[in-house]
Amino acid sequence: MSLIVMKFGGSSVGSPERMQRVAKRIIDSSSAGNRVVVVVSAMGDTTDDLIDQSKQLNPNPPAREMDMLLTTGEQISVALLSMTIHQLGHNAVSLTGWQAGIRTEAVHSKAKITDIRPDRLFKELDAGNVVIVAGFQGMTEDGDITTLGRGGSDTTAVALAAAIQADVCEIYTDVDGIYSTDPRVVKCARKLNEISYDEMLELAHLGAAVLHPRAVEYAKHNNVKLVVRSSFTQNEGTSVKEEAVMEQGVVVRGIAFDKNVARISILGVEDVPGVLAKVFGSLANNGIDVDVIVQSGVKDGKADFSFTVSGDDIARAVEVISGNRDQVPFNEVTSEDNLVKVSIVGAGMVSNPGVAATMFAAISELGVSIKMVSTSEIKVSCIIAAEPLQDVVRALHTAYGLDTAEQVFVGGPQDRR
Amino acid sequence: MSLIVMKFGGSSVGSPERMQRVAKRIIDSSSAGNRVVVVVSAMGDTTDDLIDQSKQLNPNPPAREMDMLLTTGEQISVALLSMTIHQLGHNAVSLTGWQAGIRTEAVHSKAKITDIRPDRLFKELDAGNVVIVAGFQGMTEDGDITTLGRGGSDTTAVALAAAIQADVCEIYTDVDGIYSTDPRVVKCARKLNEISYDEMLELAHLGAAVLHPRAVEYAKHNNVKLVVRSSFTQNEGTSVKEEAVMEQGVVVRGIAFDKNVARISILGVEDVPGVLAKVFGSLANNGIDVDVIVQSGVKDGKADFSFTVSGDDIARAVEVISGNRDQVPFNEVTSEDNLVKVSIVGAGMVSNPGVAATMFAAISELGVSIKMVSTSEIKVSCIIAAEPLQDVVRALHTAYGLDTAEQVFVGGPQDRR
Repeated sequence: MSLIVMKFGGSSVGSPERMQRVAKRIIDSSSAGNRVVVVVSAMGDTTDDLIDQSKQLNPNPPAREMDMLLTTGEQISVALLSMTIHQLGHNAVSLTGWQAGIRTEAVHSKAKITDIRPDRLFKELDAGNVVIVAGFQGMTEDGDITTLGRGGSDTTAVALAAAIQADVCEIYTDVDGIYSTDPRVVKCARKLNEISYDEMLELAHLGAAVLHPRAVEYAKHNNVKLVVRSSFTQNEGTSVKEEAVMEQGVVVRGIAFDKNVARISILGVEDVPGVLAKVFGSLANNGIDVDVIVQSGVKDGKADFSFTVSGDDIARAVEVISGNRDQVPFNEVTSEDNLVKVSIVGAGMVSNPGVAATMFAAISELGVSIKMVSTSEIKVSCIIAAEPLQDVVRALHTAYGLDTAEQVFVGGPQDRR
Repeated sequence: MSLIVMKFGGSSVGSPERMQRVAKRIIDSSSAGNRVVVVVSAMGDTTDDLIDQSKQLNPNPPAREMDMLLTTGEQISVALLSMTIHQLGHNAVSLTGWQAGIRTEAVHSKAKITDIRPDRLFKELDAGNVVIVAGFQGMTEDGDITTLGRGGSDTTAVALAAAIQADVCEIYTDVDGIYSTDPRVVKCARKLNEISYDEMLELAHLGAAVLHPRAVEYAKHNNVKLVVRSSFTQNEGTSVKEEAVMEQGVVVRGIAFDKNVARISILGVEDVPGVLAKVFGSLANNGIDVDVIVQSGVKDGKADFSFTVSGDDIARAVEVISGNRDQVPFNEVTSEDNLVKVSIVGAGMVSNPGVAATMFAAISELGVSIKMVSTSEIKVSCIIAAEPLQDVVRALHTAYGLDTAEQVFVGGPQDRR
């Protein structure tokens, strides 16, 4: 008998039929002798509908009231899912975040969980109930309702799993698991059986939006075993854990990519201490996220450096830099959009020299020039033009031996969704 | 500076425009120097929509889960209303029932309030906030969410007013106040300035569905001054209190009526002790509400008696009685549907003999026969055929001096709604 947390996203419960399918899945797990805690998100478009309603009345609503509003979405989900399980003849009880003992800091719209008091949860499990907890929400010590921000339901699931020391936290989604790359781009993308937390973090940050990075970090920190699997098939899914077994001869676990990237270069910057802090501080203060940063060497007391931002932020970023010219003098600022970041990720890289060289070679062979490079212990990212992205990802997938004949015939991405 | 509870029903907040109008109304009261607590129901059709969703998944959902589901309707209302007030530049904070300290017994779908702990409410008032509380809901000692059943938001408002010793509890609705009878039936219906709790109770039970009887009882018990007024006009409304001033020469306060009434008569019942208890006990056990009961004298050890039920229950009621014939022998059971109950209500009746006679005369003059009569200290009810109801109500309204020339020109009921 295992203690299991099962998490279902909003699209998994977006219609009565889907809700029933999820209920059956939960009952199967419970009937197999497991003690089951379920975390569920708001159904389908509920959250967006609530946001639309609020914007009509207040374009900038107070975050506290927004949390009050949005948490109803998950409360509706848990009540309906519990009713569905009852209809199928099994016992279930729904709990809001505060009823499940989820305490957070007193910050609205992106609170962090500070503490979980699982007494009620265990009481309901002991009474033979499936316990269905509203994701994404918690309560402050003062009794105010908070939300956990993006990826909140994943975080709820992982945090509950840690608090009750669950054997596994299963994240149900609309794909079969974590793939070596996006199956919509590379048909022979390989479903991974295992992946380490760190690799998952790199893949998640880089665009494989199956599992929120914050939840992965939480899982890593608390050593919670995650399994990502489909709510529509019985396939095994992908295990995310501390030490993931690498297949023989495979160094790179996956190929990630991020579209809509822009490069900004500041040329001829006076190389005085604190100059980088000033530039990136002012960008951060203006809400502009900077990703890859590359600085070339200093020449004649002046430096050139480049960084990437989202394509949506390019005009504002140039504006901020130009507005700061008094404090950070430079010769010229240039920019280029319509770029992508393509990355290879794998824990095996550390001990395998030449991994990056294979990447550069594969990209060059396609006649594509690499504009920027950034590396970490377990990944290499290249900034390239957006245009031949598919060819590049396919070439890398093949170059690192990730293609599987088996997967080629599985079908297009539609079949997997 | 007064402490005021303002209660708005679902139709008052059913659209963004209405929500804004309600927000302005609240701000007016707050800006006039009052400390304001607002109670609000779920918007428009929200509750019905949620019930529809649940029925698709479980036709008989557990009451606990239904409460979990339905309370989201009021939570959405309070959050949106608070945002609207903020948008208009004033401070407000929304609270769920449990946050407002409303504790109930552990019964779902129709819990009674056991206790209110208003600490949080006073804290928010002291901080200069309008406090907006979700109606219809509370929490058990064990932390489960409950609902108060029909008329629940009225009850929340009155109970909060009692707990914080508010100066007045204003019930905003879609009519101007309590009328001497339904303005859709009698155009010259008179809006009452004052009415006693007991009269209001009789009128509410008899079909003037503006204010829930349970809330009136709560108000009477706790001596909470109620004012029923329109959320669409600035008119004064009707005060409901212990001692209401009667206008000179007026004995009857209002004319109420109840449609869809059926009469059942059981003839030749053995007059042994406990026979009535058996008959009405079995009806109650089958969920059939009995209203007026009349027993004529006993003759040769046998009695005839008649009672009224809802027209919808007539077949089942006859079935229950026939099924009980072994225990309660009788000669014959007869029934008649398509009847109405028309009632005159007024605390002045007690000290004015001849009030009932005026009623009987007015009805007889229309050639209508009275099938049953029932009286209490402050009302007389007659059961008559449904057909000439409008004429009867008009005749009684005139006979008791309730017509006002002033009101005749106000317009039809559409203008009042």
